[in-house]
Amino acid sequence: MTDTQHAVSLAVTDVTIDDEFWNPRLENNREVTIEYQYDQLEESDCLENFRRAAEGADGGFEGMWFADSDAYKWLEAASYVLATHDDADLRRRVDEVIELVAAAQEADGYLNTYFTLEEPEKKWTNLNMMHELYCAGHLIEAAVAHHRATGESSLLEVATRLADHIDSVFDSEVDGVPGHEEIELALVKLARVTDEQRYVDLARYFVELRGHDDRLEWEFEHVEEIAGYDPDGGGIVEGARDVFYEDGEYDGSYAQAHAPFFDQEAVEGHSVRAMYYYTGVADLAAETGDEELIDHLESLWENMTEKRMYVTGGIGSSEYGERFTEDYDLPNDTAYAETCAAIGSIFWSQRLFELTGKARYADLIERTLYNGFLAGVSLDGTEFFYDNRLESAGDHHRQGWFHCACCPPNVARLLASLERYIYATGDNCLYINQYLGSEGTVTVDGIAVDIVQTTDYPWDEDVRIDVQPAEPTAFTVSLRVPDWCEEASVSVNGEPVSVPDDGYVELDREWDDDRIDATFEQRVVPVRSHPAVEDNRGRVALTRGPLVYCLEGVDHERPLGQYRIDPETTFDASFREELLEGAVTIDGEATVPDLEEWEGRLYRPDDEASSRTASITAVPYYLWDNRDPGELLVWIRAT
Amino acid sequence: MTDTQHAVSLAVTDVTIDDEFWNPRLENNREVTIEYQYDQLEESDCLENFRRAAEGADGGFEGMWFADSDAYKWLEAASYVLATHDDADLRRRVDEVIELVAAAQEADGYLNTYFTLEEPEKKWTNLNMMHELYCAGHLIEAAVAHHRATGESSLLEVATRLADHIDSVFDSEVDGVPGHEEIELALVKLARVTDEQRYVDLARYFVELRGHDDRLEWEFEHVEEIAGYDPDGGGIVEGARDVFYEDGEYDGSYAQAHAPFFDQEAVEGHSVRAMYYYTGVADLAAETGDEELIDHLESLWENMTEKRMYVTGGIGSSEYGERFTEDYDLPNDTAYAETCAAIGSIFWSQRLFELTGKARYADLIERTLYNGFLAGVSLDGTEFFYDNRLESAGDHHRQGWFHCACCPPNVARLLASLERYIYATGDNCLYINQYLGSEGTVTVDGIAVDIVQTTDYPWDEDVRIDVQPAEPTAFTVSLRVPDWCEEASVSVNGEPVSVPDDGYVELDREWDDDRIDATFEQRVVPVRSHPAVEDNRGRVALTRGPLVYCLEGVDHERPLGQYRIDPETTFDASFREELLEGAVTIDGEATVPDLEEWEGRLYRPDDEASSRTASITAVPYYLWDNRDPGELLVWIRAT
Repeated sequence: MTDTQHAVSLAVTDVTIDDEFWNPRLENNREVTIEYQYDQLEESDCLENFRRAAEGADGGFEGMWFADSDAYKWLEAASYVLATHDDADLRRRVDEVIELVAAAQEADGYLNTYFTLEEPEKKWTNLNMMHELYCAGHLIEAAVAHHRATGESSLLEVATRLADHIDSVFDSEVDGVPGHEEIELALVKLARVTDEQRYVDLARYFVELRGHDDRLEWEFEHVEEIAGYDPDGGGIVEGARDVFYEDGEYDGSYAQAHAPFFDQEAVEGHSVRAMYYYTGVADLAAETGDEELIDHLESLWENMTEKRMYVTGGIGSSEYGERFTEDYDLPNDTAYAETCAAIGSIFWSQRLFELTGKARYADLIERTLYNGFLAGVSLDGTEFFYDNRLESAGDHHRQGWFHCACCPPNVARLLASLERYIYATGDNCLYINQYLGSEGTVTVDGIAVDIVQTTDYPWDEDVRIDVQPAEPTAFTVSLRVPDWCEEASVSVNGEPVSVPDDGYVELDREWDDDRIDATFEQRVVPVRSHPAVEDNRGRVALTRGPLVYCLEGVDHERPLGQYRIDPETTFDASFREELLEGAVTIDGEATVPDLEEWEGRLYRPDDEASSRTASITAVPYYLWDNRDPGELLVWIRAT
Repeated sequence: MTDTQHAVSLAVTDVTIDDEFWNPRLENNREVTIEYQYDQLEESDCLENFRRAAEGADGGFEGMWFADSDAYKWLEAASYVLATHDDADLRRRVDEVIELVAAAQEADGYLNTYFTLEEPEKKWTNLNMMHELYCAGHLIEAAVAHHRATGESSLLEVATRLADHIDSVFDSEVDGVPGHEEIELALVKLARVTDEQRYVDLARYFVELRGHDDRLEWEFEHVEEIAGYDPDGGGIVEGARDVFYEDGEYDGSYAQAHAPFFDQEAVEGHSVRAMYYYTGVADLAAETGDEELIDHLESLWENMTEKRMYVTGGIGSSEYGERFTEDYDLPNDTAYAETCAAIGSIFWSQRLFELTGKARYADLIERTLYNGFLAGVSLDGTEFFYDNRLESAGDHHRQGWFHCACCPPNVARLLASLERYIYATGDNCLYINQYLGSEGTVTVDGIAVDIVQTTDYPWDEDVRIDVQPAEPTAFTVSLRVPDWCEEASVSVNGEPVSVPDDGYVELDREWDDDRIDATFEQRVVPVRSHPAVEDNRGRVALTRGPLVYCLEGVDHERPLGQYRIDPETTFDASFREELLEGAVTIDGEATVPDLEEWEGRLYRPDDEASSRTASITAVPYYLWDNRDPGELLVWIRAT
């Protein structure tokens, strides 16, 4: 196993974010969200399941059958926090949870509290729905994060024993793939930290078998014999299997199992599964250097971004099946755009960036981070969107927790590891992908390079970057020109350099103690959708920099659908300190119909209808639903 | 009982339509539809139910539990045909069906084949759902029509015996109102033909009790004891009762039973029920001259037309409950707008016209007739819309028959009695309400007036009317200026007269052998909706004269939502002989987005998107879905 197949490597641990925009979010995540989520793990009996399993109890499992993964994602998030902040209380709590998890592991390495408590004789019988491998994957991710953060092996040993158990069962006793991917990417992480090739091989087994075997279909034909079936009705299989059927026929696309990887021409099915799947495939490609895998992944990513993605970076249009549907099917008021799917898209894009060094993947990470992802959590860090509408009549709001609680801890683990997306290193090259105030050290070809970013991004367009290698060294600094930026200027020590339309500005020089200044002009840009997107015809979304904006009912007198804007008008963007903890709003003029003259009329000749001007105020989409509840509108009617 | 409470009387039997536009539709109705529907009565076993009931069979009822009404509506339609066309075959067939119906009547006058065959011991126990009174009402309407058309009493005797039986049961053994109104208006018709006041009293009983009693609610609390309940599930009550509940609470609004008549401030609930109810109330008002009833009916009609009606005259927005929903809730792609409801709206408006002499009621009849109603039947007379969408992706089509077959025979009975809507007489006044080529004799204050209309309406704007009383007589001819007409001119014997903006031109003179010429200018008028109608914001519907137009996929290369029109542009209206048996189409220019430049892009800045012109062709809405199946769009995106 070797990492040299990566075109680019992540530069991880040695960067600390210190950023006006992100500090409050990250502080909330550390000090409120992770604490709050721990309480939820107790309140939902997630941790109690581990305790009871450890005690050898029979029955009494509480929550969704894959609730173990909530604890694992919390452990992963907490470990990322521990990597950058030494918090003794948190460390003690993490150790307590690890102890619970370890105690619940069975003698042969098996670990899943639902099965231990409820159906111990039916392990590995329902790969479609029961998520044993999914939970195992999250345990492994947590263990790798914990080990890297603390150097300790307490959780890694648990994860390794479980991985070894899986390795002993699959491709021998059991032959099949999980209904929900996750184990694949986790096994590659485990291989990297343990230097054990067999985990890569096991990941490859799962990837290569998907779409080839008929095990998943077989399970549905034998529901009575497998786990999760309740003959009195209401069992797991009874309740959840419909999404695997289309017109009465089994349809594996929900789990990307309808065809082998290379025969899949579009991103299909449950969007979180799809993202974890492609992430795992990308990890495998990084290990094997298989160019065909990379090419096909890139074509799937193009399908997603060119035909199946909301302007916020959100993906998965349909609540039914939490899934992708068809090209250009992007309804706004029923948009699902699950927060976990946005996070999965960031994972996948990051892998594709590492494999190719292409800026477009960092562009999408930025777009998703500031919009589809960040909307998932309230300003105070205690409420979450599971699904993210782009239009609402006023009845869609964040919640504190969910019976299916995948999103909140997923948000926490991404925020807690955000610094990992800023820089990357390639062959004699330092990539600057994201613009966040931060300082740290990155190693470029063996030389430690101190790097400090100073910026008020995304409110402001200026970024200052100070680069100071341990000794004067020649290498390339590749500075991403965001895809939304129409006018960028960059200088090194005050000397302007030429800037391409997008992609990277490549600054080749011997770096010593140098200063880069970049200005990414932030105009208000109304954007349109491809004409095939039905809901968005005749509408524009306002954007500024990486941010998508929206109208909220709380700022407007009329129903939002009555405002019509002229995209060619001048919009005013200004920072408002007092609003939503400080934000740039977009203000402008719109027209609204005169209502008085409609009194007693339902239909009138067009030439009798008149309108007048009214002000609109747009706020960043990620900030919506943090004030009085009300309407939401991203796609505004336009002339 | 007296008819003198009417402000206006219908002038019925002595007018014959001879009109380029309507002749083919009426011929199809007489020669194809009524024949075809008779076959359907046999094929659906509707007539077999009567045969089996007559034979004393037990069980085996087929079809919806109110299928008897299909036969009655067919009899009514066929009777209207016999009133104007002596067709020996049809007369024989009508007599055969009447014989079947008469034979199925029980000794005490009771008549309902579902109950006779299936639940003879549970008559009158489930007034909410079982439609015994609804079927009785349709029998009475058929009987009155048959008697008036033929002078025979064969069916009238059956109806009278049933009405007498109902009179003996209600307000004594049983106290309650039907879930589906119809009996009320039928009883007033029966009173008028029999001159029996007690039928008016019985109608008044049903009208006045509605909203006051709790019998309907009681029935749902005792489903096991009443008719239509199947303890194994799937019974009538089990399947159909949901519409009576709102958030788990009984809600009588589905059947207009949520409040007494005078406390109802909006048209609510199942739209066909509502129309038959208000029609019955209007009939009662005509008998009693109760001004408060009339005023309140007019206010309900205003609520309907100002807040709850499609531009086609269609009513009832929601498939669930086939009902009215909320003010301005008029979605297009899920529009229900049941054909029967449009017909009911015509019945109600005609009654309100008779009560008030106001032109607006005739205006709405015209709009509904040419749009929401006429779309209900295919050009060839053999296929029908039950629900009438105003927008469709291409999956909505007419059908030959329906398991719930209320609409087809309702269409037939309205077409077969269309001549009744042309003229009316008031005090020394002749109203000309609808413009159809026709000739006939109308009696004005005892004087027979021959009247001939010659017009190519609605394609052409000119109408010629020749008026010739039996002797020179002074009276007023009130000529309706359609509400859509912005420029009308009228002359008598070539002498122009002044014309009001809308309402009636009142032509007072001594009529001898005189000619009226009217021109109702037919411009293409794009109309807009009240801004509160969400689906129609930024859209216009094209109209010309009384016709609403639509775009069909078959005439266009792009998805219809991609066309955007400038309402101020010039549209071309021209008659196309070869199209859809001859129709005026509206042709014009639209803009469509350039698709080439979108290749590989899902979102782009507004200023980069360009468009080009494309032609559109709009056809009358009532004609849609008579060619290759495809998309439908009434509300077109507009600048």
